[in-house]
Amino acid sequence: MEKKTYIGIDLGATNLHFVLINQGNKILQEKVTPTPKETKKAINLIIATIKNFVQKTTAGIGIAIAGLVNQKEGVIYFAPNLGWRNVKLIKKIKRYFPELEIVLENDANAAAWGAYFLLGKRKIKNLICLTLGTGLGGGIIIDGKLYRGVNGTAGEIGHITINPQGLRCNCGNYGCIERYIGANYLVAEVKKEIKQNKKSVISKMVNYDLRKITPEIIALAAKKGDKLAKNIWENVGEKLGIILTGVINLLNPEMIVLSGGISGAVNFFIKELKGTLKKRAFAQSLKRVKIVVGKKNLGVIGVALLAKENN
Amino acid sequence: MEKKTYIGIDLGATNLHFVLINQGNKILQEKVTPTPKETKKAINLIIATIKNFVQKTTAGIGIAIAGLVNQKEGVIYFAPNLGWRNVKLIKKIKRYFPELEIVLENDANAAAWGAYFLLGKRKIKNLICLTLGTGLGGGIIIDGKLYRGVNGTAGEIGHITINPQGLRCNCGNYGCIERYIGANYLVAEVKKEIKQNKKSVISKMVNYDLRKITPEIIALAAKKGDKLAKNIWENVGEKLGIILTGVINLLNPEMIVLSGGISGAVNFFIKELKGTLKKRAFAQSLKRVKIVVGKKNLGVIGVALLAKENN
Repeated sequence: MEKKTYIGIDLGATNLHFVLINQGNKILQEKVTPTPKETKKAINLIIATIKNFVQKTTAGIGIAIAGLVNQKEGVIYFAPNLGWRNVKLIKKIKRYFPELEIVLENDANAAAWGAYFLLGKRKIKNLICLTLGTGLGGGIIIDGKLYRGVNGTAGEIGHITINPQGLRCNCGNYGCIERYIGANYLVAEVKKEIKQNKKSVISKMVNYDLRKITPEIIALAAKKGDKLAKNIWENVGEKLGIILTGVINLLNPEMIVLSGGISGAVNFFIKELKGTLKKRAFAQSLKRVKIVVGKKNLGVIGVALLAKENN
Repeated sequence: MEKKTYIGIDLGATNLHFVLINQGNKILQEKVTPTPKETKKAINLIIATIKNFVQKTTAGIGIAIAGLVNQKEGVIYFAPNLGWRNVKLIKKIKRYFPELEIVLENDANAAAWGAYFLLGKRKIKNLICLTLGTGLGGGIIIDGKLYRGVNGTAGEIGHITINPQGLRCNCGNYGCIERYIGANYLVAEVKKEIKQNKKSVISKMVNYDLRKITPEIIALAAKKGDKLAKNIWENVGEKLGIILTGVINLLNPEMIVLSGGISGAVNFFIKELKGTLKKRAFAQSLKRVKIVVGKKNLGVIGVALLAKENN
């Protein structure tokens, strides 16, 4: 049997992440580089890096992106963090690599597929993967298959309502969970509270320049025992617990994976999250679900595995 | 090819509903009779009626019940409305019909399976079926299969949270949607408002005996233009719309079926429900989902079809 390799690309607003994996899902080559602001430059960099990665054994390329995509046509409808709209990405790349299978997928779906292989070892057939970052994304594996829904938009856990009378969300709904625990909103909340003279080490950590506050800094402050920061994370845990209660009662999954940028702060919210689930979710369903923290590379490996799947 | 028939039984707290169907899903024989209060009497009546219905062509029996069941072992763990606990129903019935395949299923799952055949004609592969009654149940069809989750408890739409600080639900959670739109709670809400001297034709309709208020009477009052009754149903529509927004954003289904007792009042809440979905749900997902009202026999036919499936 011929040995094949696959390229995975995670196209983020901050970084472009490339991997080359073999059939045993092992990373042979890896590169992380800042994403050029301009769409054309970013696409050129992707093409140049693929040329660098591609081998005779390479049979497919997978590209993951945070946003709404049309998998079949390979079109990015809208990637809000990148500001891309209606980009025919696959067509542009295919021109240079006509012999390769190229697939496009939402990053949370790709991470779910990666979790299915790397964390569930293909034995856990029903799982949910959350990507906690600027947005709150989700991917669903059912019966060992990626579940996309009727027009490919399934998995939007971030847009389940936690407060019907709550704040307006970008999606048009009111009180979506993402509107409370997305990275930007956490940062905004901290800023607001500091401006209201709440005591916190964060002010000093950013040299009193509140624009420099990031989720990483809020996590660092929590580690130092800062009360404001700890409250922020506990609130994330409780809110996530309320939404996951509904998801567990509805889907009775075997595994829930927490991935994405904010999952690095999981130590500061996992206790509140699990406590909320214990208080609220069906006991029979809860006892069968494993809550697992996923590594950052689930998406980029997952999308390479999706390219493999299509081969 | 031999022509086979199947028996379906819907074991409700109020009525026992029996059907005999042929391979074309057509009802050949049907009976509805009050459910005896005592468990033993109810089981004896079920056995006697099966004897009456069974034919040489009969290959299987399906039994649907509102509650938590173990499909594999044929045990009713808990049926709250009947007050049944740990009843080994299939074993008891199998003794009399050893040659027949007998299956047990939660009534909302059975209704979803019925909807998949009767409403979706097996072409709509992903659908959600709600049973609106004393409780709010749900069944999920994914990829043309009944989705039960890892231990058979999937589909509990009624126990998604609509108000995290809300009223305690029977399940232990706070602010579940069922706690607001379940039949008993609707009735309790009307009683409370009438006692607080809210004007309503309902008082007169029940001869000032508030114990006689039922969802049917609230629907009838709404038909007469009663403001209190109309508000009650509009509130059902809005709350259901908020929860279904989350379900649509999460699962991107092709069809949502409203079935069960309260669905008879759908005319009084469908406008508010659809308005809420339009205001809140992802437009791309919403435009692809059909909202359909199901007949009362979806569950009883669905469970007969499940017996057929296992043959």
